Amino acid sequence: MRIVYKYGGSSVATLEKINAIAQRLKFLHDKGYELVVVVSAMGKTTNELITTAQQLSSKPNKRELDALMCTGEIKSITLLAIALNELGVPAVSFNAYQAGIYTNNNHTRAFIDHIDTTKLEKVLAENAIAIVAGFQGVTESGDLATLGRGGSDTTAVALAAALKCDCNIYTDVSGIYSIDPRIYASAKKLDTIPYSDMMELAVNGANVLEPRSVELAAKFGVKLYVGQSLESEQKGTIVMNGKDYFERIIISGIAVKEHISLVSLKLNNVDKRLLYKVFGIIAKSSINLNMVSCQNFLDNTILSFSCSLTQAEEFIDSFKTDADLNEIEINIQKDLTQISVTGTGMSTHTTFIANILKTLTENYIEFSNITNSEISFSFLVMPKYKESAIKVLAERFEI
Amino acid sequence: MRIVYKYGGSSVATLEKINAIAQRLKFLHDKGYELVVVVSAMGKTTNELITTAQQLSSKPNKRELDALMCTGEIKSITLLAIALNELGVPAVSFNAYQAGIYTNNNHTRAFIDHIDTTKLEKVLAENAIAIVAGFQGVTESGDLATLGRGGSDTTAVALAAALKCDCNIYTDVSGIYSIDPRIYASAKKLDTIPYSDMMELAVNGANVLEPRSVELAAKFGVKLYVGQSLESEQKGTIVMNGKDYFERIIISGIAVKEHISLVSLKLNNVDKRLLYKVFGIIAKSSINLNMVSCQNFLDNTILSFSCSLTQAEEFIDSFKTDADLNEIEINIQKDLTQISVTGTGMSTHTTFIANILKTLTENYIEFSNITNSEISFSFLVMPKYKESAIKVLAERFEI
Repeated sequence: MRIVYKYGGSSVATLEKINAIAQRLKFLHDKGYELVVVVSAMGKTTNELITTAQQLSSKPNKRELDALMCTGEIKSITLLAIALNELGVPAVSFNAYQAGIYTNNNHTRAFIDHIDTTKLEKVLAENAIAIVAGFQGVTESGDLATLGRGGSDTTAVALAAALKCDCNIYTDVSGIYSIDPRIYASAKKLDTIPYSDMMELAVNGANVLEPRSVELAAKFGVKLYVGQSLESEQKGTIVMNGKDYFERIIISGIAVKEHISLVSLKLNNVDKRLLYKVFGIIAKSSINLNMVSCQNFLDNTILSFSCSLTQAEEFIDSFKTDADLNEIEINIQKDLTQISVTGTGMSTHTTFIANILKTLTENYIEFSNITNSEISFSFLVMPKYKESAIKVLAERFEI
Repeated sequence: MRIVYKYGGSSVATLEKINAIAQRLKFLHDKGYELVVVVSAMGKTTNELITTAQQLSSKPNKRELDALMCTGEIKSITLLAIALNELGVPAVSFNAYQAGIYTNNNHTRAFIDHIDTTKLEKVLAENAIAIVAGFQGVTESGDLATLGRGGSDTTAVALAAALKCDCNIYTDVSGIYSIDPRIYASAKKLDTIPYSDMMELAVNGANVLEPRSVELAAKFGVKLYVGQSLESEQKGTIVMNGKDYFERIIISGIAVKEHISLVSLKLNNVDKRLLYKVFGIIAKSSINLNMVSCQNFLDNTILSFSCSLTQAEEFIDSFKTDADLNEIEINIQKDLTQISVTGTGMSTHTTFIANILKTLTENYIEFSNITNSEISFSFLVMPKYKESAIKVLAERFEI
């Protein structure tokens, strides 16, 4: 059976852990599995490399930062391949050039364009384990580019799609929970979850899977399994096509995203004609407008959107260099918490949103910037309201 | 003016040093220099990576070890490029794929086959500094391979040859000395030295330049300058065509190479027919037979050769797996010191070698495994004789 395995940074943080994974892979290889293994950088390596670069430059050149970060995964794949060869298991490491993972040139947040699996197929045909560097791709001009936060999940799912097989993602949590168990101890682990619900949980901050990897999995019908590294039996969560669940599940979980920045602009009727410039800057900064709000009040329009602090600062920098935008009032609120309630079928239960807002106001929890989709409802709170908001919603809706 | 600069590991060991080199390169770039900068891995990085691999495997898979080691140089080139961009100097890093440095697939000791300078020329034409990872190349099958010890010098000279320019090698010593000043304090620094003499000094263990880089420089007529990092004026040594010096210089220096292993085989008349197998193993282990000796005595032949301890162990391993060779007596002496006296014109001064041996025996210094070329004379001593041998020869020949 062909399968893509993915191990995160905490699973390969030490040489001992790498050896343990090598032992596990040898066991599977001996059983006849055809294995492609995607590995992240060891432990906190990526953050350490970024910190090193920032000692030389407050805004490191992105092409160079990408190439620097890629060394983290190359180190972990070669060490895992060395450990496997030592155990007598043929294993071959693949950097992005070798794995044929081609991306666009949007450095630090690149998208995969296509994968040429020729070399991977050749190594699999020779009965060797292919160890692929996660998080990295090659641009058309031959530069290394990284796929953004959690990019190794994206690498794993994209490879599974290209190689037409399932994908197992191993991490330090034992599966997908309705609410992060570190935040709410009574959270339930799910045996299965449809792609759509997983997508909402991921977008809204459940840190187990990255939204892009879930989106890719749904698009190509890749069956995803999420479990704990080195578990002896499958006790995790399967993410799959949800057609069997549409009627059954209503609320699948609550997701929390912290350290959100909210950028707000106050535009008068003259300024409004410059909105095309503002959205131009947003696009250039690759800000994903998942919480955007635009309200008119008397002669003024308030435009606000949430993003990371880095993106907010990047936006402000570009904003300030455009003389036309000088008159516009701009404001940033840092360190807000986004809470999202997700569940397929939410849109068909019309009283649902009103019930959420009622529950929050009954408990004196202040919120702002409400957004909702077919299957999720999100809002921002100050960090002090985080725990109480989760608790009252979980109790009210029996999550 | 176009020029290749090379900085060794000690020159880029810290972020402060990388910043200082970036400042220096900015100064040269502002003056209009067209710069290609070859950088080694920071400080002891390469050794640390090897040690890490050896914790997983006593003999790490060489393809994987090569890819692992290459991360060291990729880290230093990207950090230097980040520092230069921060100073407002356009700089682009090049790994082996990007620099177009193609090698054979002799992992850990690969040879450069050819260099495709298209991308380098493009970046130079855009007035940017090209920062190239030393020590690494790409094999025909797209794998990373390293060039062996001191490979960054080879990278620098090969690039200078391909780009048709001079090459400045910066290190932590201030030039080429007749004898290593750490061993013999009265050693003289040379302003110039012909390729041939430098080659002998390098082959025989002067650790400033690697023999392969000197050979390449001689072959392509690349003018080499060797000096100290960040020196304010050129006070180092120029290595160049030596036709002006053939008559003038006799002894240019004494070189010392430590931790030499000597492998000795005792073969009887029957064993001798197996010599082809012995040399087969030597070739397979890529042992450079620079000190080989073969003597017949009565019915026995003693074959001996010097090499590194790693190579000696590799040789013994292969030797022992061949049942035909079981009867042959084999012996290793570890940790010997090789001393070489070098100088163009040695072969035309016939009394010279006799005078060396006379000086050594007068001073009760025991030696073995004499070898000599047109321009050098080498022998092995036990480490305890190292200092006295250098001292008596330096005094006798006024080096």
